[in-house]
Amino acid sequence: MKTAIQDTYADSYSHCYGCGRNNPHGHQLKSYWEGSDTRAEYVPDDVYTGGVPGFAYGGLVASLLDCHGTASAYAFAHRELGIPLGEADPPIRFVTGQLTVSFRAPTPLGVTLIVTGSLERIEGRKVWVKLGLNDGVQTCATGEMLAIRLVD
Amino acid sequence: MKTAIQDTYADSYSHCYGCGRNNPHGHQLKSYWEGSDTRAEYVPDDVYTGGVPGFAYGGLVASLLDCHGTASAYAFAHRELGIPLGEADPPIRFVTGQLTVSFRAPTPLGVTLIVTGSLERIEGRKVWVKLGLNDGVQTCATGEMLAIRLVD
Repeated sequence: MKTAIQDTYADSYSHCYGCGRNNPHGHQLKSYWEGSDTRAEYVPDDVYTGGVPGFAYGGLVASLLDCHGTASAYAFAHRELGIPLGEADPPIRFVTGQLTVSFRAPTPLGVTLIVTGSLERIEGRKVWVKLGLNDGVQTCATGEMLAIRLVD
Repeated sequence: MKTAIQDTYADSYSHCYGCGRNNPHGHQLKSYWEGSDTRAEYVPDDVYTGGVPGFAYGGLVASLLDCHGTASAYAFAHRELGIPLGEADPPIRFVTGQLTVSFRAPTPLGVTLIVTGSLERIEGRKVWVKLGLNDGVQTCATGEMLAIRLVD
């Protein structure tokens, strides 16, 4: 069984509403390697509707891209360094510097959404990630993230 | 007593998790005019933590900017047309085309966050809005939104 990227975060950093395994109230998004890219699946509950029932509110789309993006940056950084996920000491941690979300089509609720990430480039502590979100039929959103590695 | 911008949305468009008065589970963000700009206040619950407890997850910051941004675009469009909020027939509705969030400092939980919006420009159905989020001490995030008016 594959281990999710977020499940290799240290326990003390795993409380995120979007993707933390230690937050029972949140989305618990789980991202995985897929070849040299990353992928997550998520089925949004009806509570996360936008103004008109049936489609997600914009904040959910941004949340999924944000958590998948920082997880992807973390994974790409480990790969670049040749360190297995979760085995860096001190742990590798990323925060979002900037996130741009382009909304392409309404994002449906109650179906499996697929979130994708690919590495654009790494420069020192900065990692740029290209993001996408589709519902299996069409692209609902695309994104660009600049993630920044924290130095303890 | 002032009426929130979102409280002038039609009932059938007021289910948004971020700002809908008809969504009992959501944030129910309420934005108001402040001079020629817009402003909202919001106190985030601890459940919306990021990875490390005490600060908001990125998705919450994006959600607040997104809902405040579309509400601001809707208000600016009414003002441009000389129509009181909520009195357009058919109703004026906006969706986010693109949102960029720049994370400047960690966003604390449990304190009053102030979200601001100002009009950059209007071109036909497109409205560009500048956004900010501060905790009363410092700027935590800034944003740029392109909102697009739906044509029924």
